[in-house]
Amino acid sequence: MPPRIVEVRQNILKANDLRARRLREAFAHAGVYVVSLVSSPGSGKTTLLCATLRQLRGRYRVAALVGDLATDHDAARLRESGAPVCQITTGTVCHLDAEMVERAVATWDRTPLDFLFIENVGNLVCPAGYDLGEDLRAVLLSVTEGEDKPQKYPAIFHSADLAIITKVDLAAAAEYDEALARRCLEEVRPDLEILRVSAKSGAGVDGWLRRLEAGLLRKRGGVPDPMRTV
Amino acid sequence: MPPRIVEVRQNILKANDLRARRLREAFAHAGVYVVSLVSSPGSGKTTLLCATLRQLRGRYRVAALVGDLATDHDAARLRESGAPVCQITTGTVCHLDAEMVERAVATWDRTPLDFLFIENVGNLVCPAGYDLGEDLRAVLLSVTEGEDKPQKYPAIFHSADLAIITKVDLAAAAEYDEALARRCLEEVRPDLEILRVSAKSGAGVDGWLRRLEAGLLRKRGGVPDPMRTV
Repeated sequence: MPPRIVEVRQNILKANDLRARRLREAFAHAGVYVVSLVSSPGSGKTTLLCATLRQLRGRYRVAALVGDLATDHDAARLRESGAPVCQITTGTVCHLDAEMVERAVATWDRTPLDFLFIENVGNLVCPAGYDLGEDLRAVLLSVTEGEDKPQKYPAIFHSADLAIITKVDLAAAAEYDEALARRCLEEVRPDLEILRVSAKSGAGVDGWLRRLEAGLLRKRGGVPDPMRTV
Repeated sequence: MPPRIVEVRQNILKANDLRARRLREAFAHAGVYVVSLVSSPGSGKTTLLCATLRQLRGRYRVAALVGDLATDHDAARLRESGAPVCQITTGTVCHLDAEMVERAVATWDRTPLDFLFIENVGNLVCPAGYDLGEDLRAVLLSVTEGEDKPQKYPAIFHSADLAIITKVDLAAAAEYDEALARRCLEEVRPDLEILRVSAKSGAGVDGWLRRLEAGLLRKRGGVPDPMRTV
């Protein structure tokens, strides 16, 4: 990368970190557990989030922010759950940053929340460096994408607290080698927590919901999420 | 995006366009037909390219450049075809640019080529703005990624000359709605040429090879590829 853009980018990342810290303090004050989802385009972030909002909604106050370059397709799908959803349209920008989250949260109504979900732009590269003030960053990888994505996109896996293998209903059709995939994850991020889900069949969704509830409980108990590394 | 980074980025894109023009002239002089592949991570660029190199190699002089943030997995897979392959490791950079291609080509041996393939970093956002001097840019989208990717990532579809729907062997398992996918493509890029392939079953690969041969013939006949728009 040309030196000038590297320098400008470093300054931007530093400013982002300061904003993210402020956001994290505000979220802690409000007692809301904030979860971000990152992945390639089409790995199933929106489908998993739809199921999550639908199932948590009866018992918790939930809301979602969703980033896309264009369209509000994802926000429309998420709104079907009945939860409040805010679309962040990034134009040509390839990731969400703390400022976009801060702006979206500020214009929102001040209803207290238990869970706030942030669905990033589909991109396995650029979101890695941008802290959004979240408590938990989950990186999704679908069984149809190939097993070696952690090796090829290491930064995003380093920045994540949890990996979710998605579309496990397609594992046989895609000839997915799960043992290999786990070795690839282990090599890049030893001991990273891993869940397996199919939002379509519902397999594994309960485990994901329990993980979220445990995170909220820990946060409310004042104990930081033991997985949080960013 | 902050104004300063927008300005720096515009200057970089301008410099890239000049380099890409120089590359395109050099490729034209050498009579090599240059094809770039862009897509999300895991859409099947490498698998299709392996099949392509294997099948063209008996009749044509072929070579490939492949970009990844980390690892030379893809280059190793592509080299199994017997074709010369150069890995471009981009580190944290989320796309290839004309300078990287220029450097890779310059250090290479001067064997005359019929086809040069350039596999970009898996990213449906950032490669859109970087012309690489190619004759044909193919954007791949797999049946497992969902039908609305053109709407959500319009810039990359605007920059492409051809869309390749991949992993069509998984279409039924993924409940892929091809009519919807074609409507989504048509809405963003009317009359964009569309191919369907499964590199695994071999379906559609012949059509792709014929398309490549027709492109080479047109280039050698001095007629520019009618689809080239970038």
